[in-house]
Amino acid sequence: MRLDLSYDGTDFHGWAVQSGLRTVQGEMVRVLSMLAQTQVELFSAGRTDRGVHARGQVVHLDLTPAQVALLEDPGRINRALPKDIVVHRMMHAPTGFDARFSALWRRYTYRVCDDSTAMNPLLRHMVLWHHKRLNLDAMNEAAQGLLGLHDFAAYCKPREFSTTIRTVEHLAWHRDEISCVMTIQAEAFCHSMVRSIVGAMLPVGDGRKSPDWPAQVLAGRERNVGITVMPGHPLTLEEVGYPSDARLADRQLVTRGRRSLDDSTTCSEA
Amino acid sequence: MRLDLSYDGTDFHGWAVQSGLRTVQGEMVRVLSMLAQTQVELFSAGRTDRGVHARGQVVHLDLTPAQVALLEDPGRINRALPKDIVVHRMMHAPTGFDARFSALWRRYTYRVCDDSTAMNPLLRHMVLWHHKRLNLDAMNEAAQGLLGLHDFAAYCKPREFSTTIRTVEHLAWHRDEISCVMTIQAEAFCHSMVRSIVGAMLPVGDGRKSPDWPAQVLAGRERNVGITVMPGHPLTLEEVGYPSDARLADRQLVTRGRRSLDDSTTCSEA
Repeated sequence: MRLDLSYDGTDFHGWAVQSGLRTVQGEMVRVLSMLAQTQVELFSAGRTDRGVHARGQVVHLDLTPAQVALLEDPGRINRALPKDIVVHRMMHAPTGFDARFSALWRRYTYRVCDDSTAMNPLLRHMVLWHHKRLNLDAMNEAAQGLLGLHDFAAYCKPREFSTTIRTVEHLAWHRDEISCVMTIQAEAFCHSMVRSIVGAMLPVGDGRKSPDWPAQVLAGRERNVGITVMPGHPLTLEEVGYPSDARLADRQLVTRGRRSLDDSTTCSEA
Repeated sequence: MRLDLSYDGTDFHGWAVQSGLRTVQGEMVRVLSMLAQTQVELFSAGRTDRGVHARGQVVHLDLTPAQVALLEDPGRINRALPKDIVVHRMMHAPTGFDARFSALWRRYTYRVCDDSTAMNPLLRHMVLWHHKRLNLDAMNEAAQGLLGLHDFAAYCKPREFSTTIRTVEHLAWHRDEISCVMTIQAEAFCHSMVRSIVGAMLPVGDGRKSPDWPAQVLAGRERNVGITVMPGHPLTLEEVGYPSDARLADRQLVTRGRRSLDDSTTCSEA
């Protein structure tokens, strides 16, 4: 079964189960196990950190037809879930589908409000307040230097046996009614990579650094202490892309092979 | 002094001070009294109910120049306030300014999401989820019957010595990216009036009532038990309008005169 869900990450210690802490995976496993009358195991496309939200998280789990019948529909699951998680869709996953290894890309957004007179306290759990005005042209110029295939070691928490080579397919800032929004899409992300990239972009936006600085940091290929890992609450996992059903099984084999050296807990975190 | 502020009403028992309960007025009075080193009294344009938010609440208070100097600027006040209240502007109020009695109009919005597949848990403190699709054309047709000067007794909690005659200047529904939004503007509102009007509109939108029903209810001129007072959390006080400085003093006299029979705690509630 494939489930698509949203959550408000504010009151969770991230996606992954941690003993004694409230996590999204923990709540989902508890509710789905209760409804399906079996201990379920749940696999997600993105292991979001503490405070990070999701609009389009995708998970899969294996159930017998009888167990599926017990789940009924998303409405029944949502009535049993706490109000900060909502399941939008529930469907039979095609053969070969794996929420994590079948994914072609993940897209995240990061929201920063640079106008202190416009600060909306209703949005404080999803927007970062930055006290200097941001020049989005400079930030988009800087973004060009991070696009494509690179070793993102400078922007990642190092983990043994994990590769830090990633392909950033899209990276751009725009303004909406509320805030400046960074949209970033990649096949996968290293741990804390998106929040470190934001940490390199904001000094460009407010004039403390030049637009070529984030690319210089990247070229250093080592964790850079000059870069602040920004907080998680303005970050949202927006969408995960998958190939057509026919190509799913192939895709999973490719991904598993490429990441064989990875620490299996880290490669799709943001 | 005039202050313009926003708040997330989720964790407040409304605007007005209540013994032993957390209220916006209570927090504002505490912080401003501490900073200005005097016990301040605070008057607001709208006495919002429990769970109701504000984007453009206006308050006034009387201070000596020395006390004003102690407040410094909105930044200092915001650092002392809890994170669910933000002061956007602080200015010397013109002569004759009264946040409540000088106001020409109040504008509120009410947000309803009628697409359960789009439910965003991040917005659950500001949007009502309605499980049937809404026909906004029918609701806007119904809105026509409530515009203008009427006795809104059918839509108000009755209070002794309070008039329920109000002029609704604007009332319309539209869809934005997130939800259906009702915008309503009136000189002032009776208690629970906006939430009762929403309660009459939703049955029109989902087909349980005809578009002329809300006007029929209005014509009944008595509190109608068939109308649900909807919850407060999707309601936001968006903006309060004031006349030009030169006309402020006149305005206050007019308002005080007209509402002389009102219970002074109720006439600007929504």
